[in-house]
Amino acid sequence: MDDSSLDVRQGIEPPGEINPRLTWAANVRTSPDQLAEQLLAGDRDALSRAITLTESTLESDRKDAIALLDRILPHRVPSWRIGITGSPGVGKSSFIEKYGTLLLADGHRVAVLAIDPTSPRTGGSILGDKSRMSALAHDDRAFVRPSPSRGALGGVAHRTREAILLCEAAGYDRILIETVGVGQSEIAVSDLVDCFVLLLQPGAGDELQGMKRGIMEFADVVVITKADGDSLNAARIAVNQASQAIRWLGPNSSGWTPTVALATTQTADGINDAHNAIQQYFGHLMSESAVAEVRASQDMKWLRQLVMEGVLKQSTQSANLNDKLQRFEQEIKSGKVSVPSAAELILQGLK
Amino acid sequence: MDDSSLDVRQGIEPPGEINPRLTWAANVRTSPDQLAEQLLAGDRDALSRAITLTESTLESDRKDAIALLDRILPHRVPSWRIGITGSPGVGKSSFIEKYGTLLLADGHRVAVLAIDPTSPRTGGSILGDKSRMSALAHDDRAFVRPSPSRGALGGVAHRTREAILLCEAAGYDRILIETVGVGQSEIAVSDLVDCFVLLLQPGAGDELQGMKRGIMEFADVVVITKADGDSLNAARIAVNQASQAIRWLGPNSSGWTPTVALATTQTADGINDAHNAIQQYFGHLMSESAVAEVRASQDMKWLRQLVMEGVLKQSTQSANLNDKLQRFEQEIKSGKVSVPSAAELILQGLK
Repeated sequence: MDDSSLDVRQGIEPPGEINPRLTWAANVRTSPDQLAEQLLAGDRDALSRAITLTESTLESDRKDAIALLDRILPHRVPSWRIGITGSPGVGKSSFIEKYGTLLLADGHRVAVLAIDPTSPRTGGSILGDKSRMSALAHDDRAFVRPSPSRGALGGVAHRTREAILLCEAAGYDRILIETVGVGQSEIAVSDLVDCFVLLLQPGAGDELQGMKRGIMEFADVVVITKADGDSLNAARIAVNQASQAIRWLGPNSSGWTPTVALATTQTADGINDAHNAIQQYFGHLMSESAVAEVRASQDMKWLRQLVMEGVLKQSTQSANLNDKLQRFEQEIKSGKVSVPSAAELILQGLK
Repeated sequence: MDDSSLDVRQGIEPPGEINPRLTWAANVRTSPDQLAEQLLAGDRDALSRAITLTESTLESDRKDAIALLDRILPHRVPSWRIGITGSPGVGKSSFIEKYGTLLLADGHRVAVLAIDPTSPRTGGSILGDKSRMSALAHDDRAFVRPSPSRGALGGVAHRTREAILLCEAAGYDRILIETVGVGQSEIAVSDLVDCFVLLLQPGAGDELQGMKRGIMEFADVVVITKADGDSLNAARIAVNQASQAIRWLGPNSSGWTPTVALATTQTADGINDAHNAIQQYFGHLMSESAVAEVRASQDMKWLRQLVMEGVLKQSTQSANLNDKLQRFEQEIKSGKVSVPSAAELILQGLK
């Protein structure tokens, strides 16, 4: 079989799902410097390819990705990084579409990223297709990026951090990070945004148990959605209940007590309240010159995480650590060995 | 200078503070097996020495401590592990004294341990002297242990876990863990108790900002203290507010919505409410056979932590990792290098 016959055979195979990695690899390889130039010129396609590059796990790609990040770092625009979360069905996409459009009208450029820690089985995927935010997806001043390929939440969060830097370098000054309210993801997201917005639905049951309790440590702005038609009254009651509960909880560690806003996507000015609440929060952050401080501490936490993860990977890759941990699980459960003793035995084996 | 003159010189030096480590070392060394036997016979002094042994950082002591833990593990009594937290001044010691006495009257044996992550400078020390709980401290059926020598919270939590096992082996079936409400310590404590009790004072300001927000993810029972005299009305209002806020927050991940109880230490039956609320919670746990499940998952988390910490220690001890992290902090702040790039450079240096 010669090369040409191989080409023909490949040509007649039905096209499968497009794998962004293959698309990237199939392109004439762009150097990190070239890619940086295109991206800094505001080329949306270059931004897409740059994010795909950071998501690659190939070692050579990783090297290029790091070179690219270092190269674009000093050229980013100042931005607001805003996390937006809520249960499925609360209206996250509609809210982001409407809020993004409002920000565009105010002269901003808007990037929408997503963190989705749910597995394919749960069907909780968010931003799976851009059609849900068509107005934003088709506007040249906006950039909508579906959730990165699934993986461990930690890895997804690292990739999202890098995507934020790339968006800022491409001139996007309002970064919206969408996440589904399932507990763990909010903690990860709170480490990479300046402001955390929680969407709640009036009269909704607690379909996600523990969600509100876990998330209220991080929320800066609470928005009651669907404040229209028959549910307007329920929304007003929900605002009262939320305000009282939040007052009881008291301010968070940065001294901020979350504001509660009403929102509807049915009217032209339906999300002005939420918009104002977010602006008010950034006013607070900026009056305390706290943005830089928050981000510096997030960066150091990020660095520590990456280094610790790297060290653990180096030390445990060949040792099948997870197998060892699982093997001891039964012995610990049955009371045969104490936890400190099991840890000691595992560590001895690694030496 | 001969040996005898050395002895004399030491003899006339004024006695300093007693160091429990020195006291232990100065004793005729008891083998782990002997110590286990004394402890299993309910010898309070042996329990004290056993806990001191686990707190030692000497390698030989550590080995003995692990042998001791393995030895006593199968002989522990079934217990309730209860975390109790609240701001300074809320009445933690009085509550524990009263609750502990009530438990003794019910035929239980009570151990009180403490986790204190505050530095000596803040003066936030708890359980520094046993005189605050004199009734318990002087009762043979109770065991009160001051906070372990200060250290990183992680280490203190590990030692407390071991102390819990030792107390259970010595026959104590009600373990109360006192901690001061400063945020991080609750997260650590929630990983080592079955039930978490939050004490709040009626009408108290938010002297510890963010405390309530952070802790409400973990609280199983909320107790409003000082429900007596002039503050009884304020306490009743506080119960209402807390109940409403907790209803709004919804159940936690184990499906439990915290109960709110009134308490006063001024009357004989002043803490019956809180006592009932705690019993109700354990009823819930036991009806779902959840205690064993909760503890098994806590144990696996503990094992993972110990192994990861050990791996990191092995890998980074000689590498001065903290120095390296700090050196990169400035370069990251000034935008000279991206975080992933800095992490890569540090990891390369460790290889």
